[in-house]
Amino acid sequence: MRFPSRLVTFLAGSALCLNAVFAADDTTATDEKMLRVIFDTALTTSSAYEQLRELTTKFPGRLAGSKNLEGAVLWGRDILASTGADTIELQPVMVPHWERGAPEVVRYFGRQFVSPVALAALALGGTIATPPEGVRAQVVEVQSLDEVKTKDVKGKIVFYNRPMNPVHISTGQAYGEAGDQRRSGPIEAAKYGAVGALVRSLTLAIDDFPHTGNTSTPPGTVTVPAVALSTVAANNLSAALKLDPATTVEMIVNARKLPDAQSHNVIGEIKGSEFPEKIILVGGHLDSWDIAAGAHDDGAGIVQSIEVMRVLKAIGYKPRHTLRVVLFTNEENGIRGAAEYSTQAKAKNEIHVLALESDSGGFAPRGFNLGNPAGNAHTSAARWAALFQPYGLGTFQKGTGGADVGPLLAHGATVAGLIPDSQRYFDYHHTTIDTIDKVNKRELELGAAAMAALVYLVDQRGL
Amino acid sequence: MRFPSRLVTFLAGSALCLNAVFAADDTTATDEKMLRVIFDTALTTSSAYEQLRELTTKFPGRLAGSKNLEGAVLWGRDILASTGADTIELQPVMVPHWERGAPEVVRYFGRQFVSPVALAALALGGTIATPPEGVRAQVVEVQSLDEVKTKDVKGKIVFYNRPMNPVHISTGQAYGEAGDQRRSGPIEAAKYGAVGALVRSLTLAIDDFPHTGNTSTPPGTVTVPAVALSTVAANNLSAALKLDPATTVEMIVNARKLPDAQSHNVIGEIKGSEFPEKIILVGGHLDSWDIAAGAHDDGAGIVQSIEVMRVLKAIGYKPRHTLRVVLFTNEENGIRGAAEYSTQAKAKNEIHVLALESDSGGFAPRGFNLGNPAGNAHTSAARWAALFQPYGLGTFQKGTGGADVGPLLAHGATVAGLIPDSQRYFDYHHTTIDTIDKVNKRELELGAAAMAALVYLVDQRGL
Repeated sequence: MRFPSRLVTFLAGSALCLNAVFAADDTTATDEKMLRVIFDTALTTSSAYEQLRELTTKFPGRLAGSKNLEGAVLWGRDILASTGADTIELQPVMVPHWERGAPEVVRYFGRQFVSPVALAALALGGTIATPPEGVRAQVVEVQSLDEVKTKDVKGKIVFYNRPMNPVHISTGQAYGEAGDQRRSGPIEAAKYGAVGALVRSLTLAIDDFPHTGNTSTPPGTVTVPAVALSTVAANNLSAALKLDPATTVEMIVNARKLPDAQSHNVIGEIKGSEFPEKIILVGGHLDSWDIAAGAHDDGAGIVQSIEVMRVLKAIGYKPRHTLRVVLFTNEENGIRGAAEYSTQAKAKNEIHVLALESDSGGFAPRGFNLGNPAGNAHTSAARWAALFQPYGLGTFQKGTGGADVGPLLAHGATVAGLIPDSQRYFDYHHTTIDTIDKVNKRELELGAAAMAALVYLVDQRGL
Repeated sequence: MRFPSRLVTFLAGSALCLNAVFAADDTTATDEKMLRVIFDTALTTSSAYEQLRELTTKFPGRLAGSKNLEGAVLWGRDILASTGADTIELQPVMVPHWERGAPEVVRYFGRQFVSPVALAALALGGTIATPPEGVRAQVVEVQSLDEVKTKDVKGKIVFYNRPMNPVHISTGQAYGEAGDQRRSGPIEAAKYGAVGALVRSLTLAIDDFPHTGNTSTPPGTVTVPAVALSTVAANNLSAALKLDPATTVEMIVNARKLPDAQSHNVIGEIKGSEFPEKIILVGGHLDSWDIAAGAHDDGAGIVQSIEVMRVLKAIGYKPRHTLRVVLFTNEENGIRGAAEYSTQAKAKNEIHVLALESDSGGFAPRGFNLGNPAGNAHTSAARWAALFQPYGLGTFQKGTGGADVGPLLAHGATVAGLIPDSQRYFDYHHTTIDTIDKVNKRELELGAAAMAALVYLVDQRGL
């Protein structure tokens, strides 16, 4: 395409002088200029993308209990220090420690092949192991948890193969709906005497990259070894079962659970100039799945949260409330970092006027979800719609922030979550291909700027 | 991240029964249901992505005058036939025929290196050749066309190195602003006696892929050989010039202009049931640069336009106005397809109630630009904002559609252009990496559905 050269310049300012901004009489005009300064600064001077490269290159596979997660904790501490945090705390958290062990092997023995056929698979987080020699059994394909009880699965492997629903525009909604198979599928299969569970990967892409993720493993429950199959592998296995229902699958899973390990939330803050006891939190989670570099999930949220502090410092903005950046540990398989943070916050009677999370990928921002006890945070924030419109954000919907800030809602906090464009997130989520080349630098920066803008508005105008 | 499983399902319908839809009393309710059916159909049954794979694999480098462009013309004709067009016309168009010839060579001789250093470069469209042995000269770096006349460029190579402005949220705006260097830089350099022009690639990405594109070459004007440098090459050359202003560059360009060639616009239509003489056009351009597969530019617009017809047929919708899909030829270096189409349309007194173009890439749709002689098309379309909101579209801005439908505006047409998210477009535009792996299947389908939705609304409700 070409663009007509007569396109008018609709935004002129790039001045970074805050005095000039605050000299404006009109509140809306002031806010408009501040947002312009925030976005300009993020789009021209950010080091978020290079920080993301460093985090994902030095510390991939940052699963709870791993050395790389604790390496990332120290990295986060040092970056927050160099970004200008007044104080930095490493908040101790005991986290689960599950290890994959030697790579899983999953293959099927079909009538039409002489040799078994490998299926691209990843053991699901928290799964138990098979015996060293594996299990081999016939396969019962189902589309739902409910269907398990209607089939004879005793001694067999249950294969959950309901795809994510492509008609939902928010892929997160489709993920939430199909996710019961991964979360509860293994336990449900065990309840009816199955010996293993295969789960179709939670993605709308048809490719050969399996997606891991957590399974529900309450202490004392009986469960079975469980792996995710790539969508291509799931389609192939389903076709093989139609040709020959007696097709068998062999699974070898070498996972093990170890004693809980020491980890830390990383908390850096700048004291508020007027209300130091009231907190505006921005955060994401440091941990990733063991097989993932965790660029979108959630390295993006980590570097965006740090960037909020950097941008506000860079433009000389002094927050009235305490600005706190929290790099949560252990979101993926325990949410223990969030639990410890909210427990401590409650014990100290901390007041969070905003707790804003980024954990939906480093894509172009579209808006926010917001929640507070009164249930009106999203409508209150929607009064800023015109301010955000030039930057492509228009969504202000009710929500609970995200997994890490959500627990604070029960303690009276206002919580929020950045909503980026969701179309590509589940192409990479919990896979070996969640790498920095899948993150666009400008989209990452726009998300950080959107977060900084909301922080500024809540700091000045309240929610 | 995780998504809370309690996320409510906000959209229930997936019924594809139009009778039920049209039985609704309320116009808005009918339109809501129709849009849902259109999006569901595009997201579940589209073959647009596989058509794009075929087009870009069988006919890459579809530049005017090439065999691949005429191969794509016949491909387009056949796809339109199989999609259910009542009539298909190949509208003859004579197009310019410029060829790159043997790959260009650009390198610099710096004091700090024993051997010359290669610079990633692509000859710009329409450029003249150097002598076979090339030209070698000192380099004058400038930031604008105006700066040329202030420097002594006689016998030298002018190096236009002003980057696209990163603070514009619309990357198309930044492209339009920086693009004068590519369009007019060679002629401006020639005017002051330069012997060549180097132009920084029009992209915000810092990488080593040069971006070609057209240069202005009015008949009879004196110009110089011109190439685009990758942004990395431009940065490297700029650094070398700072170290040693006597650095020289050697350029070898083998391009040539041939006599105009025969090409065709491909026009497929379904006759309108009530107003067959009034036309709703959807289109994109078939041609691409010689070095590009042209997946985003503009294979995406081609398959999306075809998909509009497919979706409306698939759901049994009978357009009241004639639905015409136009696959324009020669947008990139001549816009002769658009010129011929509009000339013929005027000669036949054709009435276009909508001419909708997709030529900004196959990214997630954000809205439309619209224009008509009265200047109110965009405000009129904005009354549908609530209908488009669930699908992520919220932009209705004044515009001229795009390069291919723009000429119809002068003949009284209402024109429009799909506006997708713009952040990544210029990472790939006019490069060797504009390939199908850069296109997300769902984003492509959402864009096609948005186009079909606008077509439906204009067909039923008018603009």
